[in-house]
Amino acid sequence: MEKEFLAIIAGVLALLFAFVFSNQIKKESDGNERMKEIAGHIHQGAMAFLKREYKYLAIFIVVIAVIMTVIPSLGWKTAIAFVLGAILSILAGYFGMNVATKANVRTAEAARNGQSKALKIAFSGGAVMGLSVVGLGVLGLTITYLFFDGNVQYLTGFGLGASSIALFARVGGGIYTKAADVGADLVGKVEAGIPEDDPRNPAVIADNVGDNVGDVAGMGADLFESYVGSIISALTLGAALVSKNILGNEAIIFPLILASAGIVASIIGVVIARNSKSENPQKALNTGTYIGGILVIIVSAVLSKMMFGDFKAFIAIISGLLVGMIIGKITEIFTSADYKYVKKIAEQSQTGAATTIISGLAVGMQSTLIPIILIAIGILVAFYAMGGSQESLMGLYGIALAAVGMLSTTGLTVAVDAYGPIADNAGGIAEMAELPHEVREVTDKLDSVGNTTAAIGKGFAIGSAALTALGLFASYAENTGITKIDVLNPVTLVGVLIGAMLPFMFSALTMESVGKAANKMIEEVRRQFKEKPGIMEGTEKPDYTTCVDISTGAALKEMILPGISAIVVPIFIGILLGAEALGGLIAGAVASGVLMAIMMSNAGGAWDNAKKYIEGGVYGGKGSDTHKAGVVGDTVGDPFKDTSGPSLNILIKLMTIVSLVFAPVIVEFGGLLMKLF
Amino acid sequence: MEKEFLAIIAGVLALLFAFVFSNQIKKESDGNERMKEIAGHIHQGAMAFLKREYKYLAIFIVVIAVIMTVIPSLGWKTAIAFVLGAILSILAGYFGMNVATKANVRTAEAARNGQSKALKIAFSGGAVMGLSVVGLGVLGLTITYLFFDGNVQYLTGFGLGASSIALFARVGGGIYTKAADVGADLVGKVEAGIPEDDPRNPAVIADNVGDNVGDVAGMGADLFESYVGSIISALTLGAALVSKNILGNEAIIFPLILASAGIVASIIGVVIARNSKSENPQKALNTGTYIGGILVIIVSAVLSKMMFGDFKAFIAIISGLLVGMIIGKITEIFTSADYKYVKKIAEQSQTGAATTIISGLAVGMQSTLIPIILIAIGILVAFYAMGGSQESLMGLYGIALAAVGMLSTTGLTVAVDAYGPIADNAGGIAEMAELPHEVREVTDKLDSVGNTTAAIGKGFAIGSAALTALGLFASYAENTGITKIDVLNPVTLVGVLIGAMLPFMFSALTMESVGKAANKMIEEVRRQFKEKPGIMEGTEKPDYTTCVDISTGAALKEMILPGISAIVVPIFIGILLGAEALGGLIAGAVASGVLMAIMMSNAGGAWDNAKKYIEGGVYGGKGSDTHKAGVVGDTVGDPFKDTSGPSLNILIKLMTIVSLVFAPVIVEFGGLLMKLF
Repeated sequence: MEKEFLAIIAGVLALLFAFVFSNQIKKESDGNERMKEIAGHIHQGAMAFLKREYKYLAIFIVVIAVIMTVIPSLGWKTAIAFVLGAILSILAGYFGMNVATKANVRTAEAARNGQSKALKIAFSGGAVMGLSVVGLGVLGLTITYLFFDGNVQYLTGFGLGASSIALFARVGGGIYTKAADVGADLVGKVEAGIPEDDPRNPAVIADNVGDNVGDVAGMGADLFESYVGSIISALTLGAALVSKNILGNEAIIFPLILASAGIVASIIGVVIARNSKSENPQKALNTGTYIGGILVIIVSAVLSKMMFGDFKAFIAIISGLLVGMIIGKITEIFTSADYKYVKKIAEQSQTGAATTIISGLAVGMQSTLIPIILIAIGILVAFYAMGGSQESLMGLYGIALAAVGMLSTTGLTVAVDAYGPIADNAGGIAEMAELPHEVREVTDKLDSVGNTTAAIGKGFAIGSAALTALGLFASYAENTGITKIDVLNPVTLVGVLIGAMLPFMFSALTMESVGKAANKMIEEVRRQFKEKPGIMEGTEKPDYTTCVDISTGAALKEMILPGISAIVVPIFIGILLGAEALGGLIAGAVASGVLMAIMMSNAGGAWDNAKKYIEGGVYGGKGSDTHKAGVVGDTVGDPFKDTSGPSLNILIKLMTIVSLVFAPVIVEFGGLLMKLF
Repeated sequence: MEKEFLAIIAGVLALLFAFVFSNQIKKESDGNERMKEIAGHIHQGAMAFLKREYKYLAIFIVVIAVIMTVIPSLGWKTAIAFVLGAILSILAGYFGMNVATKANVRTAEAARNGQSKALKIAFSGGAVMGLSVVGLGVLGLTITYLFFDGNVQYLTGFGLGASSIALFARVGGGIYTKAADVGADLVGKVEAGIPEDDPRNPAVIADNVGDNVGDVAGMGADLFESYVGSIISALTLGAALVSKNILGNEAIIFPLILASAGIVASIIGVVIARNSKSENPQKALNTGTYIGGILVIIVSAVLSKMMFGDFKAFIAIISGLLVGMIIGKITEIFTSADYKYVKKIAEQSQTGAATTIISGLAVGMQSTLIPIILIAIGILVAFYAMGGSQESLMGLYGIALAAVGMLSTTGLTVAVDAYGPIADNAGGIAEMAELPHEVREVTDKLDSVGNTTAAIGKGFAIGSAALTALGLFASYAENTGITKIDVLNPVTLVGVLIGAMLPFMFSALTMESVGKAANKMIEEVRRQFKEKPGIMEGTEKPDYTTCVDISTGAALKEMILPGISAIVVPIFIGILLGAEALGGLIAGAVASGVLMAIMMSNAGGAWDNAKKYIEGGVYGGKGSDTHKAGVVGDTVGDPFKDTSGPSLNILIKLMTIVSLVFAPVIVEFGGLLMKLF
């Protein structure tokens, strides 16, 4: 049991770097009184949201832990692992957001003196998040594994904790940010005609808080889940290989060491990007990302040869990395204004909002083709490289390794991902504090770069979700002892149909929640403008707190139903129709969930950039009818790309892992309905 | 082989009634010169479209027939059956549309003297279509069956002919009608400010032609496919039961006799509805529909007891009927302005088009929940009633019978479905011929009734698509000799993922085609208004023919790619990844296809009625900003509900039946990729 300590060292190292970066950020100047005040509002609003969210989650965690403890086939050990996974997921989000709400104002202040230092602060903020995610992830998993004497069964409990918190955080954060965004835009920009981030807008603080709770804390919990999910998927399959004497203990060690190597590579990449002397911020981020990626590739080749004696595992990992990167590129092609799809949506906007919507939906649907084929190729290559149909369990392990490979540099991709909202927030603070125009220009430039790298991160998230779910799915079959999930059996096909329906239902719920919450916000902003006419003249202060409260309350209320259903429905169907139908349900949910997630994310991204493209001056530019149509597309796309779409990736893994954890219960009680006949 | 002749008698009877109704319609007055001229334009435009469409289809039919003939494992017999299925499908659409384009003007003329006779003519027109569909269907199937000495294998060739024509007709007709509709509305109503169906609008004839080629001919081919598909599914499973000595020959006879009984019940229902003395047209249609339905229920109970000695088949059939009817009711709840969902979309339209779209999409997604659960219950009840897991083939046969039961009164439901566009067309003719305002009121009233009955028809179409596909799917497994389609096998799961992607891709293609065709139409109408300023003053005649040509050309061009892909992709994947992966593909396509079809149809219907609800006077009524938002929703909904949505039901069955027909080829050459490893 000594190699596991390498993982602990890597995890501690990641947290150490996160701590150092965090302290360095805090030492920077946080600007003048006005900036401090605004940043204080945002920080407090974000923390108040997290605090209230954690209260709800605490109840949820305790209830599930008690249920697990009283079910004999699960027991207190699973419950403890579950609680640990949940708490670490919360901590990852908390660390990241805490530092992000400090880095934003310091980035704005640094931007007064140009780009270089502002980039460093914003990126360091993102790196704290990224390294916290991977550090806590690897540490948590390794400790759970060692604590339970190498029994991987309890890791699934850890994964359930991480997944369920991720879903709540993503859905809650997504609803919060979009409600505030839509509310601030629709009344402020459209009705009152004041610019974005104008301090007279009562929803402006809520909007900036939203960027933090949605795009930072929500995304952190999301990627924590993806990261540990992929490792757990590989570890449980590895353990099955060990128990069947197909492989030795290296099958369990390998994913942990690979993840540890990925952490070290991420740290090196982060340090390079952060200290880059390049004047071009895009280049700085790219250099770091590519160096990190290349390091992982080299290390995985060496590890594959050292531990397994051949390069089969390496091929599986490379196939995962390549698939993820190409999906990222495809995502960019479908959502960037440099390519024809976004341009076409802008062109179609000339005939009104209806054609904007139709063409955007068509682009989103079309954009599913290549990613699905790539995922298919990735699955087949990884499967046949490691084992294939002769040794199917080995092949499945290869698929799981491909996902671990994709996510091994999560520390780096999260750093780039989380850097965006920090720069965005810095711009908002600059605007509200009425800093010179040049400051905003710097932050805007910082915000706009990193899109390519962020797109690759998205590609990894989508690709790994499918591969991880597939790996967990195989473990589910191992644990329930079913030898097939045969869709020729109508009961299984019923499971597939119900499973395929769930992402639709889930998206409907989350989209409606955004609508409801946004409406409340719109009413409140309108009320304030009406009752306090001094706001617009600058003689009266708007009441930011009420808007923050509305977003907070609505997000928390609305996250409960989708979150709970994701956990209850698989267990219910498993007990009613049996383990095989539940397997069908998962397969159906993965298939339609991956598709809806790609469709919604890309349609949303394409609409967003089509609007920006029009704002750049084509087809009449800002204020034209074409632009108005583009704004409609962007508003529809907001819940698509920031709430429903990303939540689906978590949903499919959460449902898989719920089934996996509750497998003993389903084996014992499953198929109630069948027993009636 | 004598009981089969009952089916032939029923088929002939249906065609006889269709012929009589058709002659009676022709005897009615077709109005004044102006009406004759307009009706002539519509009739010629529709026939010109069909003629050009048939030229394309003829090439397609010949090519596929030749391919079938040269493949030894298929042979000329399958090719002949294929050609017959294709030709009968074309004939059903042709008969129906031919009489519909005669009934429209006669309905308008009759409406001068009140409602009663107008209803009779319009409904008779619909009935010709309905009875042609079922008459040709049952005749064609029975003759094919007898001609090939009771070898059901060739019936699948017949089904492939019907399905492929249905897809082309639905897609082509759907693109035609929506391009013309959007073009006429956007330039005529919105830009030029002239009312709907104004003869000054150059696209007005194309718009009315579209109602015929889309809603009559397209729908006729669609339901011909559903109808024969469900019977083929039951017949092939019945034949498998016979060959395994589980049941005697009655397993094959039963579906044919059930269909024949359904034809007789439909004729009785049609005659009752047609000759009803009720002043309330809704009541007349309902009475006929209910009597037809009750007759089928009674007969199926008697047949079940007589032929199988128990009521098991009856339970399966009843479960299908109930599921179809409740899905119809649910469809109505989600798409009618009498219920909360449509009202909510209208309410949300007050904050602009973006919220109209978000809430409409959410309603569409939400509306999938209950239909999927109902389909699941229907599958399980039919499966366990007939056989269950002990005798799984019997259970599958039960599922197929449930679909036959749902569609047994197709003659009646098509009559009601096709009656709507005839009344709609009559209204258009009344408007263009400047008949008194009262005439339009009568036709509007006729058009508005029958929605409930039409909704039930839609429920049957959706429910039966899933059940039929499932039955055909089981036959596919029989024919390829695979014993399982195990999604634990990653290769199969790859099939599921690709299959689930296809409906997304297909919808993207068809939605884009509508957009492209509509844009061409918009340009042409604008050009005519600009170059011939006399049109608006009434001094110059618009050029209707060019608009008709544009719709025709675009529809035919755009239907080719989606149609061909639906046939080529399953064969390609089968050869590449093998029979089991192809099974996975079908399961994935059925799951996501059924969901997308329900979502798109219901969202489209809900938007349509939300717009009408606003036009009724709420939230500012016609011309208000809320109304404009409602119009955006309706325009997005048009390709949803009339092109992409309904095509998906055909797509999933077409892909299933392609796989079934080409099963011998896939068994022989399948799994090329696997052979490489």
